[in-house]
This record gives sequence, structure tokens and C-alpha cells, in this order.
Amino acid sequence: MRAHNFSAGPAALPLPALEQARDELLDFQGTGMSIMEQSHRDAPYEAVHHEAQALLRELAGIPDSHAVLFLSGGASLQFAMVPMNLLGAGRSADYLMTGVWSEKAYAEAQTVGRARIAATTVQPDKRYTRIPRPDELQLDPDASYVHITSNNTIFGTQWTSFPDTGKAPLVADMSSDFLWRPVDVRRFGLIYAGAQKNLGPSGVLIAVIDRELAARGRTDIPRILRYDTHISADSLYNTPPTFGVYLVRNVLRWVKEQGGLTAMEVRNRKKAELLYGTLDAMRDFYTAPVERESRSAMNVVFRLPSEALDAAFVAEAKAHALVGLKGHRTTGGIRASLYNAVSVEDVQVLVGFMRDFARRHG
Amino acid sequence: MRAHNFSAGPAALPLPALEQARDELLDFQGTGMSIMEQSHRDAPYEAVHHEAQALLRELAGIPDSHAVLFLSGGASLQFAMVPMNLLGAGRSADYLMTGVWSEKAYAEAQTVGRARIAATTVQPDKRYTRIPRPDELQLDPDASYVHITSNNTIFGTQWTSFPDTGKAPLVADMSSDFLWRPVDVRRFGLIYAGAQKNLGPSGVLIAVIDRELAARGRTDIPRILRYDTHISADSLYNTPPTFGVYLVRNVLRWVKEQGGLTAMEVRNRKKAELLYGTLDAMRDFYTAPVERESRSAMNVVFRLPSEALDAAFVAEAKAHALVGLKGHRTTGGIRASLYNAVSVEDVQVLVGFMRDFARRHG
Repeated sequence: MRAHNFSAGPAALPLPALEQARDELLDFQGTGMSIMEQSHRDAPYEAVHHEAQALLRELAGIPDSHAVLFLSGGASLQFAMVPMNLLGAGRSADYLMTGVWSEKAYAEAQTVGRARIAATTVQPDKRYTRIPRPDELQLDPDASYVHITSNNTIFGTQWTSFPDTGKAPLVADMSSDFLWRPVDVRRFGLIYAGAQKNLGPSGVLIAVIDRELAARGRTDIPRILRYDTHISADSLYNTPPTFGVYLVRNVLRWVKEQGGLTAMEVRNRKKAELLYGTLDAMRDFYTAPVERESRSAMNVVFRLPSEALDAAFVAEAKAHALVGLKGHRTTGGIRASLYNAVSVEDVQVLVGFMRDFARRHG
Repeated sequence: MRAHNFSAGPAALPLPALEQARDELLDFQGTGMSIMEQSHRDAPYEAVHHEAQALLRELAGIPDSHAVLFLSGGASLQFAMVPMNLLGAGRSADYLMTGVWSEKAYAEAQTVGRARIAATTVQPDKRYTRIPRPDELQLDPDASYVHITSNNTIFGTQWTSFPDTGKAPLVADMSSDFLWRPVDVRRFGLIYAGAQKNLGPSGVLIAVIDRELAARGRTDIPRILRYDTHISADSLYNTPPTFGVYLVRNVLRWVKEQGGLTAMEVRNRKKAELLYGTLDAMRDFYTAPVERESRSAMNVVFRLPSEALDAAFVAEAKAHALVGLKGHRTTGGIRASLYNAVSVEDVQVLVGFMRDFARRHG
């Protein structure tokens, strides 16, 4: 029996994507080899690589102005690559702080050059429960770029509309936010996303970057860390994580079969409404700390009346095959991640369990 | 039918490692989830992670003085990380040039600081057919480190014994050289190896680093690029390529079952002797350009009397399920890679085909 997997990432993947991987794991298309045993320079892998790129372009509406890259090292490497490439000498970059991952991105930028906090919603307890309002942004008009974490996996907040950054390119860590709904990619200089949320396994990072922005990037840094290197080489400068890209391809095929991002958004909003609706209806027992306008459709965080009940909830849930519900180790509480591969039925089972748990322990 | 896979990397993997991955792809140990759907902070993945580390320590004889890391970004990222971490301010690093990958490592070091060529065997035609002799090394006694490519996948040369670098730490790119025979790890400050040769799929890099060397590394670089960061976090600073590490674990189990590195070396030497013996016996038809003392046991390069025959050889071989034999795009000719998962029987089939091909075309 498949678990109801609410993990924050690595996370649930669509069953058909995994089944295809299983069925052809030893013999990819009659080659007598696994896809992971094929040279990245040979036709079988190249076809997968290019199909994954084309599906991403089609599904996310990525225009020709932007390159689609498969990289390694996760979002954490992007925290360094972004300033290394895009932070001009003597200039500064703006960071909008909405959680732990913004803090990490900002701290890494400071090792490279000048970074500036242009807004923060941090509270005295170091938590964040909302996204800044437009009037709270103190943007530097000369910033090299403006960086946001578009969805905050740990605190469960999400930018629902994106800030106007003037002529400064908008750079977004969309690791837990990419490909669950349509987004106007042209508004972004750079979008990056670790695959292990909505897209595939860990070990692959998707970057969507304005080609002109990449071309203006610094050239006095190591080649492997330059976006331009990977654009020129079509993400084959060095050996890509081939099996990871193959699984992303499988997941993208599934997204397309589901009806693309418009259909995914309908389904994802239904899941989020079901869960937040349950939390709101049972607010005597469950506390959802995030302000309503900032609620994330991807990661829903809540607490029970005590830490002991949080722990009992996680343990009992697991016994019902509801897994991955423990909040991040830095925050505690409960977190249910509702990425693309989590079904409406999974969430129905979860809210059924929540009602039952509250009745028994409330 | 399984192909006889002589690819240079990504390359053949042991069938039992793949079969295990297939059999538990949808349900890892009764969890109702794939290993790639599990959180990297949960017990199922952590057990895999630590088993892989422990097996590497056991098989390769890695002492406690050295940390075992699972990183991303391949050897190409190490070309940057090595000088970023280890090249002291105002100091210089020595590079011993034996092929294309040495050249790339050296070029990347130059983007970071001062790098110096301490030996090269490059020929006027830009090829390399041998490893430098000890008397050809012009080492700087004050070098921050000495970098070698211990096996040259493209040119088919290999260091059979390692240079004495005095007090300068020896840093080795062992991507196509790691874990096929016992090596005294204590002689190295740092060994790094992309997994996609002898160890697993692409997307995972193994680094074995002297903890003291890492602790002396520069602290003014991005955290994600510091070896010390990954040592402190036990390679869980950020999400590791979990499925890749799992497959490395499966491959390491297989290596252990085969009898460990002593048994692997016997088997690997037998394969190399069979192939080089065939080339030597048929030198009227096949030309092996590498000097005898520098021949690689991992990548055997040779040529036929014409480029047309090279191409015919590759095409006919493929029709006999002998694949991955085309030489690197920069060199042409033929290359047979004989990593751990290539069997003696695979090489027997290859040399049988070579004899037949020579008889028909010689």
C-alpha cells in the first residue's frame, strides 16, 4: 500500500513516473542498459534531456528569452551562484526576508559581496508568519537584483503576487513553489528550484534564466559556477545527474497528462482549501499561525494544544500511513506538504484523521 | 539481453545493484514509498547514507583522519572547490598535467588564484601518451597542494604509483580510478571521484579529505563550497542526491560481496591484460598509443588503420551488443572502459569480436 506522503522534500512522486522508472530500470528502450548506464553524450539520454527541457518550456510557458538549465548542488549552491554571477563589483543586491531559506541565501550572498535586507517580516521569536506588504519593501533602485524565496517551506508562507522590482531583475528561489500553478516567467530574471518538491528526486536543480542577464554575469569566477557556461553547453558542460533528469522527464509527462499547470492549480487549491478549511473549522484544537493572505498552498503548518499532542499526532498519523507530517526541526509542530503528487484523496484521509484525532484528544 | 557496456561514464553498473533498485523502487522496506520519496532527515535514508559511508571506509581502508563526503556537482565542481578551499592567499598550487581533465582543473584553479604547471607530458599534437617520470616533476616545496588526475579517461593513461609531494598535500581527481584496487588513502590530502565510473550513477561525488586539511581551508568563501561545512553536517548540510547515494550503497554492497578491492583488482587486471594482450598481439591492425608503463587499467584506447575502420568497428560492435566503444569526441579512435561492473566475459566477447573484425578487414 502506498503511504500518504506529506514530506516537505524529498517528497511524494507521481506513481506513474515511478512505475515507468521501475519497468525500464534494467533496459531502457531495448538498449540492454539502464538509462543511468548510458553516456550523457549518446542519443538515448540526449532525447530524455531535450524532452524534459521542452516539456518544462511548454508546461511553464517559458519564453525563448529564458534558458532552461539542469544543474546540480540544489538551491543551496544557487545561494552562492546567484551573487557570484549577478552581484556587480561595487554594487549591492536586495534580499526580501521571509524565512530560514531567505536568511541562508542572504548570508551566502554576504560571503560574495554586498547584500542588503530590503524587507523582513521576522518576529522577535525569529519566526515568520507572513509575506511583506508592497508598502513595506524598501528597494534599492540600483540593486543588482532582488531576491525572494517565493514559498517558505518551513514557515508555510507564500508570495501570492510578486513584487515590482523596477529595473532590478527579480530572482526567485521557487524550490517548493515551481510548477504547481501558472506563473508569468517573463517577470523573472532567474527562477531556480530544487527538483525534490514538485518535479522529481533530489540531486537536480532547475534554473530558468534570462539569457541577457546570464550574458552580463561576471566572468572572473570559476567556469562551472557561471550560468553562461551551462547555457552555452545546453546543460551538458559536465555530466548531468542523468537519472534525476530522466525522472523529472517522467514527472513532467504526468503533469502534462493531468492537464498541465491550469489543472494542477485547480487540484492544488482544492487540497489547500480542504486542509485550511479543516484548520479554520477546528481552531479550538489546531492553530495555524500564518496570516491568511500569506498562507502557502504547498506547505501547511499548524500546531496542536501541546508539544506532547504534536508528537502523538505524528506518531498516530504514521500508524495510519500518513507520513512526513513532523514540522521542521527548527520550528516543531506539524507540517503537511501538498506538492503536485499529493492527491486530493490523500488530503481527505488526512483531514479525516485530524477530525478523529481532535475528537479523541480535544 | 544485457549489453556489453564499455562506456566511459556514466557506465555499466552491477546487475544486482540495479535489480535491487528496481525491486524496491516503489516501496522501500515496507515504507510504502520509494527511497527517493523519503526525507533525507528520516531514518530509512539516514541508514542508507551511513551504510554507504561505512562501506566506503571499510572497502577503501579510509582512516578516521579522513572524512567521507557525498557531494554534488561532479569533478568539475571540485576543480573550483579545491583551489577555493585550499589555495592559501599569496600562495600557489602545483598541477601535474596528464590530459584534458588536468587542463580543466588547472584552468579553473587559475580563476581562483595562482596555479603552476609542475610537469606536463603534453605533445605538440596536444595529446598525452604517458604519465611524467619522477625526475620530470618540478615541484614547488611551498605549494599549497599538488593536484593530479590519477587516471586519464580520455587518453587512457594512469598513475601506477603516486608522486612524493613532500609536505604539500596530494590532491587527486580519481573519478575514473577510485575503488577498483586498494590504495593507501593516508598518502592523500584529498581524493575526489564522480560516482559514474566505478561507484554508481552520475550526480554523486565522493570526496575523501584529511580533516585537518579541511579545517585549515579558507573561510571567506560561500559555505556550500567549503569542505568543512559538509564534514560538520555529515554530508547532510543540504539535501543530498539521495537516490544516487542509495545506488552507490547498492554498488558498494556488491563490491564487498565480490571480495572487496583485492578481488576487484585481480579481476580488473585480468580484464586489462586480456585487452592489452590482444592489442599487442595484433599490432599490425590495432594501435595502442599509450606507453606501456602508463597504460590505464580502466580506459583502454586504441586505433584502427583508418578513421573509416574506426567508425565501422564501432558500428559493427554495436550490432553485437558491444556498446560505448567510440573514443572521446576530442580524440577519435576507440576506447573501452573496464570499470568494476564490466565482467571478464564482457572483455572476452570484445576481444573475440576484435579478432574477427581484424580478420575480415585486415
